[in-house]
Amino acid sequence: MPTHEHMEAAAHRYLQALNQGDVEAVMGLYADDATVEDPVGSELKVGSEVIRAFYTGSLGLNLSAALEGPVRVAGCEATFPFSISYVYEGKRTIIHAIDLFRFNEAGKIVSMRAFFGPANIEAG
Amino acid sequence: MPTHEHMEAAAHRYLQALNQGDVEAVMGLYADDATVEDPVGSELKVGSEVIRAFYTGSLGLNLSAALEGPVRVAGCEATFPFSISYVYEGKRTIIHAIDLFRFNEAGKIVSMRAFFGPANIEAG
Repeated sequence: MPTHEHMEAAAHRYLQALNQGDVEAVMGLYADDATVEDPVGSELKVGSEVIRAFYTGSLGLNLSAALEGPVRVAGCEATFPFSISYVYEGKRTIIHAIDLFRFNEAGKIVSMRAFFGPANIEAG
Repeated sequence: MPTHEHMEAAAHRYLQALNQGDVEAVMGLYADDATVEDPVGSELKVGSEVIRAFYTGSLGLNLSAALEGPVRVAGCEATFPFSISYVYEGKRTIIHAIDLFRFNEAGKIVSMRAFFGPANIEAG
């Protein structure tokens, strides 16, 4: 099992990569056969190709990500509250989400689930 | 599927019940066949009897619970960052956790998972 330090560091690297718009740094955190459910309840994105396309689209928004509290690590999972903000067509949007990562033995993310609903979206 | 409002309200009622030390109010939120994994990585507690015993023990600590950010609701799940604090043998302990509830069609919690690790525990 990956260490707690590894999993916490991965969460921080993830947010840093979002802020830098660095798709390859994001992809470096994921296992090849990972799944992404973002937001939870939407269709599951399966595998590197689909996940890369998703982040390429998202990071095109030039978004800012910021932790809203400490990363919690338990078992082989890490979860953290954070905000994502971006400007689209002149309007600022802020989303308050909680992401949940599950890691494999190699310390790569095999499952990412992003929890947020309409009540967590502030549109400017 | 329960409404977002129902799931968000359940999270608030849960924290209120913790603060009031009201085991029956907590149990009223759970389905009879629910599971509790608290903390994640520990043995699963299955069913009302085991879960009631768990809360009876926990709420005996006269704990205080407070949200640390908005409740996030997505799909049939709700998750929220919060703190639990209590005094035990003269020492105050604060735990920063994220709980994840999954609801059934009837709006009862069928799965609760509590994420926190050693790094999330402040012992006074």
